[in-house]
Amino acid sequence: MNDMKDFPLAKVFHLLEPGPVVVLTTAYRGRANVMTMSWHMMMEFEPPLIGCLVSGANYSFAALRRTRECVIAIPTVDLIAKVVDIGNCSGENMDKFETFGLTPISAKLVAAPLIAECIANIECKVRDTTLVNKYNMFILEGVKAWSDPKRNERRTFHANGDGTFVVDGRTVNLKRKMVKWKNLL
Amino acid sequence: MNDMKDFPLAKVFHLLEPGPVVVLTTAYRGRANVMTMSWHMMMEFEPPLIGCLVSGANYSFAALRRTRECVIAIPTVDLIAKVVDIGNCSGENMDKFETFGLTPISAKLVAAPLIAECIANIECKVRDTTLVNKYNMFILEGVKAWSDPKRNERRTFHANGDGTFVVDGRTVNLKRKMVKWKNLL
Repeated sequence: MNDMKDFPLAKVFHLLEPGPVVVLTTAYRGRANVMTMSWHMMMEFEPPLIGCLVSGANYSFAALRRTRECVIAIPTVDLIAKVVDIGNCSGENMDKFETFGLTPISAKLVAAPLIAECIANIECKVRDTTLVNKYNMFILEGVKAWSDPKRNERRTFHANGDGTFVVDGRTVNLKRKMVKWKNLL
Repeated sequence: MNDMKDFPLAKVFHLLEPGPVVVLTTAYRGRANVMTMSWHMMMEFEPPLIGCLVSGANYSFAALRRTRECVIAIPTVDLIAKVVDIGNCSGENMDKFETFGLTPISAKLVAAPLIAECIANIECKVRDTTLVNKYNMFILEGVKAWSDPKRNERRTFHANGDGTFVVDGRTVNLKRKMVKWKNLL
């Protein structure tokens, strides 16, 4: 049982363009793992392409490279302490889902799990590894997305990179100014 | 006269990792131009490498590809309406610095101008064009950075991609949890 509903692939960029801290799940040799990630960007609207850095120093690197699958999950601010802890330990030594009380949900198109506690999940396949060796950069394609419309807490958070984080504040609506980009409204 | 002070290259990732909307300036054939950009990410700490998407549909694309130089400037929320307007018109038809009342400042290492009204400016050179033809993705190296420590308004903003924007809210300090990443504190 979970509250994840279908989310259109054409709208995935709305989830990542604001630059929130995300977590990335993998499944490799029967074990699920999760890491924290802030270095990512949108690269195409549809199908959604996502560039991201996963360092060779991360235990998730081998899983991502070998399985060519992952899930990008978007946590909200109520999970901030867990998400920072997830980024400060290694799946080599522990089951992070169990340690941090995260509920894995089976994804539809990849082996990596969704996370029930996150506000959205994007199932991804690795589409381009051209820059993996040089920069640890993967290009992912979002192949299926989910969001939890019932969740009360919807504020994401952003890493300053120094152990401080900025929480989403107020939303400003400037749709009336989007004269060139009307198709995105 | 301006208030831009040297900002260490090793700390440039603190400016971009949170995922703010930025503007990118270029100078080409004697004309400065500026565009709005949300699809960017950090790729390396030092020297700072920045990945970004500049579509061939942007007038800045040719300038960036030909000159291999630009400035990434970071606007704060008091500039939000201007920044959205900058992203909804083309430098092909106008001088955006004049139209939007932006003050160009000579950069030190590139021909593209800094913007006095922004909180920080990063002078960049194009370092890798491997993925330009396929994805419009440039890899930039930050070669000199500046910030304005006197500015009162310091809140940046993030694009949802639909004409709405999230303004920075409160900051959460979780430095005590950064046990693996102590070197970044």
